[in-house]
Amino acid sequence: MCFLFVHISFMTEPSSSGRLLARGVCRYLSSLDFACMQEFSPTRGLRVDVMALGPRGELWVVECKSCRADFKADRKWCGYLEWCDRFFWAVDDQFSTDLLPAGTGLVLADGYGAEILAMPAERPVAAARRKALTRKFARDAARRLQAMNDSHPATSRL
Amino acid sequence: MCFLFVHISFMTEPSSSGRLLARGVCRYLSSLDFACMQEFSPTRGLRVDVMALGPRGELWVVECKSCRADFKADRKWCGYLEWCDRFFWAVDDQFSTDLLPAGTGLVLADGYGAEILAMPAERPVAAARRKALTRKFARDAARRLQAMNDSHPATSRL
Repeated sequence: MCFLFVHISFMTEPSSSGRLLARGVCRYLSSLDFACMQEFSPTRGLRVDVMALGPRGELWVVECKSCRADFKADRKWCGYLEWCDRFFWAVDDQFSTDLLPAGTGLVLADGYGAEILAMPAERPVAAARRKALTRKFARDAARRLQAMNDSHPATSRL
Repeated sequence: MCFLFVHISFMTEPSSSGRLLARGVCRYLSSLDFACMQEFSPTRGLRVDVMALGPRGELWVVECKSCRADFKADRKWCGYLEWCDRFFWAVDDQFSTDLLPAGTGLVLADGYGAEILAMPAERPVAAARRKALTRKFARDAARRLQAMNDSHPATSRL
């Protein structure tokens, strides 16, 4: 019984529905030659589920919504639009997509992969912001990587 | 005896002297607000020990040399100069620093930290190259991070 409990915890705790969708999204976007970072903060007070950086510097944001309540609770998504060239929702096949605002992108996802169902129009980020965002993406990713590779950092910055 | 062997292997194999120096360098540069990536390839055929990206986009390269032979065997270092604003050698306190070329930077390091002993003059990378390098740094770091976070990728690109 104890073993069963531990097993179930291991299977479910690290991956909530939203995280599973994000995993599938990242796998899919990687196949399109985008490099992805989850839980990226483009600026203070905002945190997107997936920020993807394309081979020509494209910046895509994907917000993963596991259910209607999850979507309804998101009051910040409009603020994400100005931090990316294209904005997508990622949902599973149980989600009522008529809830989603017109003009945004749509990705159908599960924990293993995804597919773009609606490609939104591109609204290019200004050059200065793209430069700053790309640098922040680079520095944040490298810091996380270093923290994972060096679990006993000498400095508090890691 | 078997246990001893396994223990020693564990202690030494993952961290050669050069890698230990690189760890100390990364910890130190992190304290200067640089984000570091080890074994970064700025372009085909080149791979630097540490590429560090500063808060204002500065690009520093640090090559870690564990001994004289290690330094003598490096025939590519001149090629690194054009891919960074500043170039440093990192060595331990046993290294004869008079071997090192004039005009390059010097970092004294061990596995736990480091210190800059000589700051080289800045030779700024051209804007277009800085942009491309920063993007590659960002994409490479994010891909490595994703590969660590998702050990069963669905695509071969991970």
